[in-house]
Amino acid sequence: MNPNAERFMSRALELAAANAASGHGGPFGAVIVRDDDIIAEGVNLVTSTNDPTAHAEVVAIRRACAAIGEFQLTGCELYTSCEPCPMCLGAIYWARPAAIYYAGTHKDAAAVGFDDSFIYQQTRMKPQERAIPMVRLLEELANQPFRAWCDNQNRVPY
Amino acid sequence: MNPNAERFMSRALELAAANAASGHGGPFGAVIVRDDDIIAEGVNLVTSTNDPTAHAEVVAIRRACAAIGEFQLTGCELYTSCEPCPMCLGAIYWARPAAIYYAGTHKDAAAVGFDDSFIYQQTRMKPQERAIPMVRLLEELANQPFRAWCDNQNRVPY
Repeated sequence: MNPNAERFMSRALELAAANAASGHGGPFGAVIVRDDDIIAEGVNLVTSTNDPTAHAEVVAIRRACAAIGEFQLTGCELYTSCEPCPMCLGAIYWARPAAIYYAGTHKDAAAVGFDDSFIYQQTRMKPQERAIPMVRLLEELANQPFRAWCDNQNRVPY
Repeated sequence: MNPNAERFMSRALELAAANAASGHGGPFGAVIVRDDDIIAEGVNLVTSTNDPTAHAEVVAIRRACAAIGEFQLTGCELYTSCEPCPMCLGAIYWARPAAIYYAGTHKDAAAVGFDDSFIYQQTRMKPQERAIPMVRLLEELANQPFRAWCDNQNRVPY
Protein backbone atom coordinates (compact mmCIF):
# COMPACT_ATOMS: atom_id res chain seq x y z
CA MET A 1 0.00 0.00 0.00
CA ASN A 2 1.14 3.53 -0.77
CA PRO A 3 2.78 4.88 2.45
CA ASN A 4 1.00 8.20 1.82
CA ALA A 5 -2.38 6.53 1.40
CA GLU A 6 -3.81 7.88 4.67
CA ARG A 7 -2.82 11.41 3.73
CA PHE A 8 -4.64 11.15 0.39
CA MET A 9 -7.70 9.62 2.04
CA SER A 10 -7.74 12.40 4.64
CA ARG A 11 -7.89 14.87 1.76
CA ALA A 12 -10.84 13.01 0.17
CA LEU A 13 -12.69 13.05 3.51
CA GLU A 14 -11.89 16.74 4.03
CA LEU A 15 -13.30 17.57 0.58
CA ALA A 16 -16.41 15.49 1.32
CA ALA A 17 -17.15 17.19 4.65
CA ALA A 18 -16.55 20.66 3.22
CA ASN A 19 -18.84 19.91 0.28
CA ALA A 20 -21.62 18.70 2.56
CA ALA A 21 -21.37 21.88 4.61
CA SER A 22 -21.20 24.12 1.52
CA GLY A 23 -24.44 22.96 -0.04
CA HIS A 24 -22.82 22.30 -3.43
CA GLY A 25 -23.87 18.67 -3.31
CA GLY A 26 -23.72 15.38 -1.46
CA PRO A 27 -21.16 14.46 1.25
CA PHE A 28 -18.62 12.85 -1.03
CA GLY A 29 -15.07 13.64 -2.16
CA ALA A 30 -12.40 11.92 -4.22
CA VAL A 31 -8.79 12.46 -5.27
CA ILE A 32 -6.74 10.82 -8.00
CA VAL A 33 -3.04 10.28 -7.46
CA ARG A 34 -0.21 9.55 -9.90
CA ASP A 35 3.42 9.18 -8.85
CA ASP A 36 2.44 10.35 -5.36
CA ASP A 37 0.94 13.61 -6.63
CA ILE A 38 -2.73 14.53 -6.59
CA ILE A 39 -3.59 15.16 -10.26
CA ALA A 40 -7.30 15.82 -9.72
CA GLU A 41 -9.89 16.30 -7.01
CA GLY A 42 -13.65 15.95 -7.19
CA VAL A 43 -16.70 16.56 -5.06
CA ASN A 44 -20.35 15.74 -5.58
CA LEU A 45 -21.97 18.48 -7.68
CA VAL A 46 -25.29 16.81 -8.58
CA THR A 47 -27.71 19.39 -7.24
CA SER A 48 -25.70 22.56 -7.85
CA THR A 49 -24.94 21.73 -11.52
CA ASN A 50 -28.12 19.78 -12.38
CA ASP A 51 -26.00 16.79 -13.36
CA PRO A 52 -26.99 13.45 -11.82
CA THR A 53 -23.71 11.95 -13.02
CA ALA A 54 -21.57 14.51 -11.15
CA HIS A 55 -20.56 12.23 -8.30
CA ALA A 56 -17.17 12.90 -6.71
CA GLU A 57 -15.45 9.97 -8.44
CA VAL A 58 -16.85 10.82 -11.89
CA VAL A 59 -15.89 14.49 -11.47
CA ALA A 60 -12.37 13.50 -10.37
CA ILE A 61 -11.95 10.97 -13.21
CA ARG A 62 -13.07 13.49 -15.83
CA ARG A 63 -10.70 16.13 -14.43
CA ALA A 64 -7.77 13.70 -14.14
CA CYS A 65 -8.19 12.50 -17.73
CA ALA A 66 -8.43 16.11 -18.93
CA ALA A 67 -5.28 16.96 -16.95
CA ILE A 68 -3.21 14.17 -18.47
CA GLY A 69 -4.86 14.20 -21.90
CA GLU A 70 -5.72 10.50 -21.89
CA PHE A 71 -8.90 8.43 -21.56
CA GLN A 72 -7.23 5.95 -19.21
CA LEU A 73 -5.84 6.38 -15.69
CA THR A 74 -3.15 3.73 -16.04
CA GLY A 75 -1.00 3.53 -12.91
CA CYS A 76 -3.15 6.00 -10.97
CA GLU A 77 -4.83 5.47 -7.60
CA LEU A 78 -8.31 6.69 -6.70
CA TYR A 79 -9.15 7.70 -3.12
CA THR A 80 -12.83 8.18 -2.36
CA SER A 81 -14.50 9.12 0.91
CA CYS A 82 -17.13 6.41 0.37
CA GLU A 83 -17.36 3.13 -1.52
CA PRO A 84 -18.24 3.91 -5.15
CA CYS A 85 -21.87 3.45 -6.26
CA PRO A 86 -22.41 1.22 -9.34
CA MET A 87 -22.20 4.24 -11.67
CA CYS A 88 -18.87 5.28 -10.20
CA LEU A 89 -17.55 1.72 -9.99
CA GLY A 90 -18.35 1.36 -13.69
CA ALA A 91 -16.63 4.67 -14.45
CA ILE A 92 -13.57 3.48 -12.52
CA TYR A 93 -13.45 0.20 -14.45
CA TRP A 94 -13.61 2.11 -17.76
CA ALA A 95 -10.80 4.42 -16.57
CA ARG A 96 -8.76 1.44 -15.30
CA PRO A 97 -6.71 2.90 -12.41
CA ALA A 98 -4.39 0.58 -10.49
CA ALA A 99 -6.20 0.69 -7.13
CA ILE A 100 -9.22 2.04 -5.27
CA TYR A 101 -9.16 3.22 -1.63
CA TYR A 102 -12.40 3.98 0.21
CA ALA A 103 -13.45 4.90 3.76
CA GLY A 104 -17.25 4.62 4.12
CA THR A 105 -19.42 1.84 2.67
CA HIS A 106 -22.55 1.88 0.54
CA LYS A 107 -24.50 0.94 3.65
CA ASP A 108 -23.22 4.09 5.38
CA ALA A 109 -24.43 6.10 2.35
CA ALA A 110 -27.81 4.37 2.41
CA ALA A 111 -28.16 5.20 6.11
CA VAL A 112 -28.23 8.91 5.29
CA GLY A 113 -30.63 8.57 2.36
CA PHE A 114 -28.59 7.72 -0.73
CA ASP A 115 -29.65 5.00 -3.21
CA ASP A 116 -26.30 3.20 -3.52
CA SER A 117 -27.45 -0.10 -1.98
CA PHE A 118 -30.70 -0.10 -3.96
CA ILE A 119 -28.83 0.47 -7.22
CA TYR A 120 -26.37 -2.35 -6.42
CA GLN A 121 -29.39 -4.64 -5.97
CA GLN A 122 -30.85 -3.46 -9.28
CA THR A 123 -27.64 -4.09 -11.25
CA ARG A 124 -27.68 -7.70 -10.06
CA MET A 125 -31.21 -8.28 -11.44
CA LYS A 126 -32.25 -9.26 -14.96
CA PRO A 127 -33.37 -6.29 -17.10
CA GLN A 128 -37.01 -7.38 -17.07
CA GLU A 129 -37.05 -7.62 -13.25
CA ARG A 130 -35.76 -4.14 -12.48
CA ALA A 131 -37.71 -1.26 -10.92
CA ILE A 132 -37.33 0.97 -13.99
CA PRO A 133 -39.00 -0.93 -16.87
CA MET A 134 -36.51 -2.10 -19.53
CA VAL A 135 -37.94 -3.03 -22.93
CA ARG A 136 -35.98 -4.51 -25.81
CA LEU A 137 -36.85 -3.03 -29.18
CA LEU A 138 -35.68 -3.37 -32.81
CA GLU A 139 -33.22 -6.05 -31.82
CA GLU A 140 -33.03 -7.10 -35.47
CA LEU A 141 -31.26 -3.77 -36.20
CA ALA A 142 -29.03 -3.74 -33.11
CA ASN A 143 -25.93 -4.98 -34.89
CA GLN A 144 -25.82 -2.22 -37.52
CA PRO A 145 -23.72 0.15 -35.32
CA PHE A 146 -21.37 -2.72 -34.40
CA ARG A 147 -20.85 -3.53 -38.09
CA ALA A 148 -20.05 0.14 -38.77
CA TRP A 149 -17.55 -0.01 -35.89
CA CYS A 150 -15.81 -3.13 -37.21
CA ASP A 151 -15.75 -1.63 -40.74
CA ASN A 152 -13.96 1.53 -39.52
CA GLN A 153 -10.28 0.73 -39.94
CA ASN A 154 -9.35 3.87 -37.96
CA ARG A 155 -11.42 2.96 -34.89
CA VAL A 156 -9.83 3.61 -31.48
CA PRO A 157 -10.72 0.79 -29.05
CA TYR A 158 -11.06 1.60 -25.35
CA MET B 1 -45.45 1.26 -24.76
CA ASN B 2 -45.03 4.60 -26.48
CA PRO B 3 -46.45 4.18 -30.03
CA ASN B 4 -43.49 6.21 -31.34
CA ALA B 5 -40.96 4.03 -29.53
CA GLU B 6 -39.61 2.41 -32.70
CA ARG B 7 -39.03 5.82 -34.26
CA PHE B 8 -37.00 6.99 -31.24
CA MET B 9 -35.01 3.76 -31.19
CA SER B 10 -34.29 4.11 -34.90
CA ARG B 11 -32.82 7.51 -34.15
CA ALA B 12 -30.61 6.08 -31.38
CA LEU B 13 -29.36 3.36 -33.75
CA GLU B 14 -28.77 5.92 -36.51
CA LEU B 15 -26.68 8.06 -34.13
CA ALA B 16 -24.73 4.99 -33.02
CA ALA B 17 -23.86 3.86 -36.54
CA ALA B 18 -22.90 7.37 -37.66
CA ASN B 19 -20.69 7.77 -34.57
CA ALA B 20 -18.92 4.48 -35.23
CA ALA B 21 -18.21 5.53 -38.81
CA SER B 22 -17.10 9.05 -37.78
CA GLY B 23 -14.35 7.96 -35.43
CA HIS B 24 -15.62 10.19 -32.60
CA GLY B 25 -16.06 7.21 -30.31
CA GLY B 26 -17.71 3.83 -29.79
CA PRO B 27 -20.76 2.51 -31.68
CA PHE B 28 -23.38 3.74 -29.27
CA GLY B 29 -26.19 6.32 -29.37
CA ALA B 30 -29.00 7.41 -27.06
CA VAL B 31 -31.95 9.79 -27.09
CA ILE B 32 -34.07 11.10 -24.23
CA VAL B 33 -37.74 11.80 -24.82
CA ARG B 34 -40.26 13.84 -22.86
CA ASP B 35 -43.87 14.35 -23.95
CA ASP B 36 -43.02 12.63 -27.24
CA ASP B 37 -40.25 15.11 -28.05
CA ILE B 38 -36.53 14.34 -28.14
CA ILE B 39 -35.01 16.70 -25.55
CA ALA B 40 -31.43 15.42 -25.85
CA GLU B 41 -29.26 13.11 -27.92
CA GLY B 42 -25.92 11.56 -27.04
CA VAL B 43 -23.19 9.51 -28.67
CA ASN B 44 -20.10 7.88 -27.25
CA LEU B 45 -17.28 10.45 -27.07
CA VAL B 46 -14.75 8.58 -24.89
CA THR B 47 -11.73 8.64 -27.18
CA SER B 48 -12.30 11.99 -28.92
CA THR B 49 -12.80 13.92 -25.65
CA ASN B 50 -10.51 11.88 -23.35
CA ASP B 51 -13.46 11.21 -21.05
CA PRO B 52 -14.02 7.57 -20.09
CA THR B 53 -17.44 8.52 -18.67
CA ALA B 54 -18.68 9.97 -21.98
CA HIS B 55 -20.85 7.03 -22.95
CA ALA B 56 -23.92 7.79 -25.08
CA GLU B 57 -26.37 7.46 -22.18
CA VAL B 58 -24.29 9.63 -19.81
CA VAL B 59 -23.85 12.30 -22.50
CA ALA B 60 -27.59 12.26 -23.24
CA ILE B 61 -28.53 12.40 -19.53
CA ARG B 62 -26.20 15.34 -18.88
CA ARG B 63 -27.56 17.21 -21.90
CA ALA B 64 -31.19 16.46 -21.05
CA CYS B 65 -30.77 17.66 -17.46
CA ALA B 66 -29.02 20.81 -18.71
CA ALA B 67 -31.86 21.39 -21.18
CA ILE B 68 -34.60 21.17 -18.57
CA GLY B 69 -32.61 22.65 -15.68
CA GLU B 70 -33.23 19.74 -13.33
CA PHE B 71 -31.17 16.90 -11.88
CA GLN B 72 -33.94 14.36 -12.43
CA LEU B 73 -35.53 13.06 -15.63
CA THR B 74 -38.96 12.44 -14.12
CA GLY B 75 -41.43 11.21 -16.73
CA CYS B 76 -38.78 10.92 -19.45
CA GLU B 77 -37.91 7.86 -21.53
CA LEU B 78 -34.38 6.84 -22.50
CA TYR B 79 -33.72 5.02 -25.78
CA THR B 80 -30.28 3.50 -26.18
CA SER B 81 -28.83 1.53 -29.06
CA CYS B 82 -27.38 -1.02 -26.64
CA GLU B 83 -28.17 -2.23 -23.12
CA PRO B 84 -26.56 0.20 -20.64
CA CYS B 85 -23.27 -0.82 -19.02
CA PRO B 86 -23.19 -0.70 -15.17
CA MET B 87 -21.93 2.90 -15.22
CA CYS B 88 -24.78 4.00 -17.46
CA LEU B 89 -27.36 1.89 -15.63
CA GLY B 90 -26.27 3.59 -12.42
CA ALA B 91 -26.48 7.01 -14.07
CA ILE B 92 -30.00 6.17 -15.28
CA TYR B 93 -31.09 5.11 -11.78
CA TRP B 94 -29.76 8.38 -10.34
CA ALA B 95 -31.63 10.35 -13.06
CA ARG B 96 -34.79 8.27 -12.52
CA PRO B 97 -36.50 8.29 -15.94
CA ALA B 98 -39.78 6.39 -16.36
CA ALA B 99 -38.54 3.74 -18.79
CA ILE B 100 -35.51 2.40 -20.66
CA TYR B 101 -35.62 1.01 -24.21
CA TYR B 102 -32.61 -0.82 -25.67
CA ALA B 103 -31.78 -2.74 -28.86
CA GLY B 104 -28.46 -4.61 -28.44
CA THR B 105 -27.33 -6.47 -25.33
CA HIS B 106 -24.17 -6.31 -23.26
CA LYS B 107 -23.17 -9.61 -24.86
CA ASP B 108 -23.38 -7.98 -28.29
CA ALA B 109 -21.10 -5.20 -27.00
CA ALA B 110 -18.67 -7.72 -25.52
CA ALA B 111 -18.54 -9.56 -28.87
CA VAL B 112 -16.94 -6.49 -30.49
CA GLY B 113 -14.49 -5.85 -27.66
CA PHE B 114 -16.26 -3.77 -24.99
CA ASP B 115 -15.99 -4.56 -21.27
CA ASP B 116 -19.70 -4.35 -20.39
CA SER B 117 -20.11 -8.02 -19.42
CA PHE B 118 -16.87 -8.05 -17.42
CA ILE B 119 -17.91 -4.94 -15.48
CA TYR B 120 -21.34 -6.48 -14.73
CA GLN B 121 -19.50 -9.47 -13.27
CA GLN B 122 -17.27 -7.17 -11.21
CA THR B 123 -20.19 -5.20 -9.72
CA ARG B 124 -21.67 -8.46 -8.45
CA MET B 125 -18.48 -9.34 -6.52
CA LYS B 126 -17.42 -8.29 -3.04
CA PRO B 127 -14.96 -5.35 -3.03
CA GLN B 128 -12.05 -7.50 -1.89
CA GLU B 129 -12.63 -10.02 -4.72
CA ARG B 130 -12.61 -7.57 -7.61
CA ALA B 131 -9.93 -7.28 -10.34
CA ILE B 132 -9.02 -3.71 -9.35
CA PRO B 133 -7.81 -3.90 -5.71
CA MET B 134 -10.16 -2.15 -3.27
CA VAL B 135 -8.75 -1.26 0.15
CA ARG B 136 -10.70 0.22 3.04
CA LEU B 137 -8.89 2.97 4.89
CA LEU B 138 -9.58 5.40 7.74
CA GLU B 139 -13.00 3.86 8.28
CA GLU B 140 -13.06 5.43 11.73
CA LEU B 141 -13.33 8.85 10.04
CA ALA B 142 -15.77 7.83 7.31
CA ASN B 143 -18.83 9.24 9.02
CA GLN B 144 -17.53 12.81 9.37
CA PRO B 145 -18.86 13.91 5.94
CA PHE B 146 -22.22 12.25 6.63
CA ARG B 147 -22.50 14.12 9.93
CA ALA B 148 -21.74 17.40 8.13
CA TRP B 149 -24.49 16.50 5.63
CA CYS B 150 -27.07 15.81 8.33
CA ASP B 151 -26.08 19.01 10.16
CA ASN B 152 -26.69 21.14 7.04
CA GLN B 153 -30.31 22.23 7.34
CA ASN B 154 -30.25 23.55 3.76
CA ARG B 155 -29.11 20.28 2.20
CA VAL B 156 -30.78 19.25 -1.08
CA PRO B 157 -31.36 15.47 -1.13
CA TYR B 158 -31.27 13.66 -4.47
